[in-house]
Amino acid sequence: MKAEIVATGTELLLGQTLNTSAHYITGKLSSLGIEVDYHVTVGDNPERIEDALRTALQRSDLLVTTGGLGPTVDDLTKALVAKVFGLEMVLDQTSLEHIKAFFAKRRGPMPAGNEKQAYVPKRAAILPNPIGTAPGAIIEKDGKMAIILPGPPFEMQPMFENYVWPVLQEKVGSDAERMNVRVLKIFGMGESAIEEVLGDLMQKPNPSMALLAKRSEMHIRLVARSSAETQALKLLDKAEEDIRARLGHKVFGKDRETMVGIVGDALRQRDLTIATAESCTGGLLGGMLTQEPGSSAFYLGGVISYANSVKENLLGVEAKTLASLGAVSAEVAQAMAQGVQTRTGAKLALATTGIAGPDGGTQEKPVGLVYIGLATPEGVQTQKFQFYGERKSVRQLTVKAALDWVRRYLLKV
Amino acid sequence: MKAEIVATGTELLLGQTLNTSAHYITGKLSSLGIEVDYHVTVGDNPERIEDALRTALQRSDLLVTTGGLGPTVDDLTKALVAKVFGLEMVLDQTSLEHIKAFFAKRRGPMPAGNEKQAYVPKRAAILPNPIGTAPGAIIEKDGKMAIILPGPPFEMQPMFENYVWPVLQEKVGSDAERMNVRVLKIFGMGESAIEEVLGDLMQKPNPSMALLAKRSEMHIRLVARSSAETQALKLLDKAEEDIRARLGHKVFGKDRETMVGIVGDALRQRDLTIATAESCTGGLLGGMLTQEPGSSAFYLGGVISYANSVKENLLGVEAKTLASLGAVSAEVAQAMAQGVQTRTGAKLALATTGIAGPDGGTQEKPVGLVYIGLATPEGVQTQKFQFYGERKSVRQLTVKAALDWVRRYLLKV
Repeated sequence: MKAEIVATGTELLLGQTLNTSAHYITGKLSSLGIEVDYHVTVGDNPERIEDALRTALQRSDLLVTTGGLGPTVDDLTKALVAKVFGLEMVLDQTSLEHIKAFFAKRRGPMPAGNEKQAYVPKRAAILPNPIGTAPGAIIEKDGKMAIILPGPPFEMQPMFENYVWPVLQEKVGSDAERMNVRVLKIFGMGESAIEEVLGDLMQKPNPSMALLAKRSEMHIRLVARSSAETQALKLLDKAEEDIRARLGHKVFGKDRETMVGIVGDALRQRDLTIATAESCTGGLLGGMLTQEPGSSAFYLGGVISYANSVKENLLGVEAKTLASLGAVSAEVAQAMAQGVQTRTGAKLALATTGIAGPDGGTQEKPVGLVYIGLATPEGVQTQKFQFYGERKSVRQLTVKAALDWVRRYLLKV
Repeated sequence: MKAEIVATGTELLLGQTLNTSAHYITGKLSSLGIEVDYHVTVGDNPERIEDALRTALQRSDLLVTTGGLGPTVDDLTKALVAKVFGLEMVLDQTSLEHIKAFFAKRRGPMPAGNEKQAYVPKRAAILPNPIGTAPGAIIEKDGKMAIILPGPPFEMQPMFENYVWPVLQEKVGSDAERMNVRVLKIFGMGESAIEEVLGDLMQKPNPSMALLAKRSEMHIRLVARSSAETQALKLLDKAEEDIRARLGHKVFGKDRETMVGIVGDALRQRDLTIATAESCTGGLLGGMLTQEPGSSAFYLGGVISYANSVKENLLGVEAKTLASLGAVSAEVAQAMAQGVQTRTGAKLALATTGIAGPDGGTQEKPVGLVYIGLATPEGVQTQKFQFYGERKSVRQLTVKAALDWVRRYLLKV
């Protein structure tokens, strides 16, 4: 099956909005073995959109559109897809109720423009939008399929996951050649270091192996092609085993696993609690620990001790330690971790103090220098890190290094 | 002048690489008043690339390609552009010397594949590549122009800045019609509500007006077209004035301004300090306040009181208040704000407590219910909010609502 993605929206052609939706969809389709031959982006112009839709339906079996489902007059996509399929637009009562309920919940009347969003091509399957008011739709006619999705990624992605993915999976069938993808996630090693260790493995064709640099992690993407899924999975298992044998505990997870998810699960399973004392990360570590629902089972809270006065008054760090060694020191990281452990009664406590930059670095304490403290029932330890990159990267690397330390402590690696 | 960007590279169609180059180029062309009508992405397939190039040259005056200039067999772009223009490929001696020098510097011989990179369409102007081995090229023939650029953004961008920008500026001329763009940023109003208030203004052609929904903000994009920049700016100023007259303090900033940047500047100018006490946001408010360098001038820190025990022990919230009214209540928000204000000595203090979801909601306290407390030298106030959306949205909306309250307090709106 050959697919084409048509994104509409003038904002995409003014250099303001990056087309992440096409990127997301293309990744999903690829993993199902659906070949994406074209991405086309057009502005909110009816002639050009119609032309792009017609061309796509001529050369591709599957057309996926994003954007142009809003309530305003320049939101045209749904009606134009209906037009090129020769379908009339009809009011979908369920969608209208959903849109009305959306506004009722917000205690406001439905603006007139939003009624338009409940119109869909006749005989289309409706894709509910759990987050916004714009429903999507799937049309199948004359051997062609069109999937109509909203533009904003936070609306489009849940719709794709919940409703489009199962339809496509069914459509692709069980015996087509699939691409089975596995992503191994690595913390604490750079691209060239990984390439040096894995060099020969990376030359093998099936599964193919590619390195993707993320801001604070490296991902290894393995793609196995096979018509039999069991065979593909066997290839992936073998490759994963080979990689883990060489990289050891640097591999912290795979696929949808996240560092904070793994740490949270490990804490929950052991019935342990954790608290945080943050300086350079300014709350990001707590924000990360509370990202997933249910985090109150293990995370108690903590102190953001950005100013030295807060380190003293709320964590009991001694003024003379701050004065003699500076806030960015192993001793202060240790005192912060102990201070928050004692004051919250948590079993474990993490502390971060460092120079996030871009200013504030010196010869002895350059930008990117970070101390992390980990207090456990057995005592408190500190580690020194030297990170590189801009402020955002240093802060995110600090958060991830702190979590990785807890992961290794709990899994005893 | 109408332009089209054709990006080539299979990696763009596997969901591995995000097409940031098209985004960058389109922004640059727009600011010169060159209308970009299409982005097209195709894989490394000669027939499809040739087809995309021919279509682009038919419907556009300016074709910009990115990608496919490398040394490998699937790097085809330059030869195919030459083909559609009916030009032969010739060896450019200067480029060959540059490529040889590149490898000599790295103390290695030039691989055979790289010689290919020195071939360019006959009579093309060469665009040197200061970072890599692939030169770009500009072709002008029969009233059409093609600009051939490499794919990797770190190679493409310096070439664009140094060599392409002056050529286009010259071509566009000083009296051509330019597009001037302004973005107004709104918090606390949805897409349809804004449209209802601005309805008639949105119909005007110059500047054109479009709404863009972000996760926790709405943006209004104004595009003014005029041959004289002063005239365009006047149009934008007038439209901004009209919008502000109707939306008032809901407009919190414009263009590159951010909510936290505006709040930070306002605090700094007034020599005020702020502290935070966070429950449902778990540290994200502190993380946001410390996002920009120099935030230690106004942010002291605070307490992440995720567990009730931390609300009691570190902030002095009374156990009986928590027991009788629950952690998500105006009284607790008030006590948290006062508690952190007293304990840190900050002039201002913000507190957040709410139900981020997806679980934990009840009839009386549904998911999305949030109380924010603001302690100032004049006293402490609380506000109740009902947000909608997934956990991530509720948390981000809470952070932004808290900052927006401080903004309005400081600017006395």
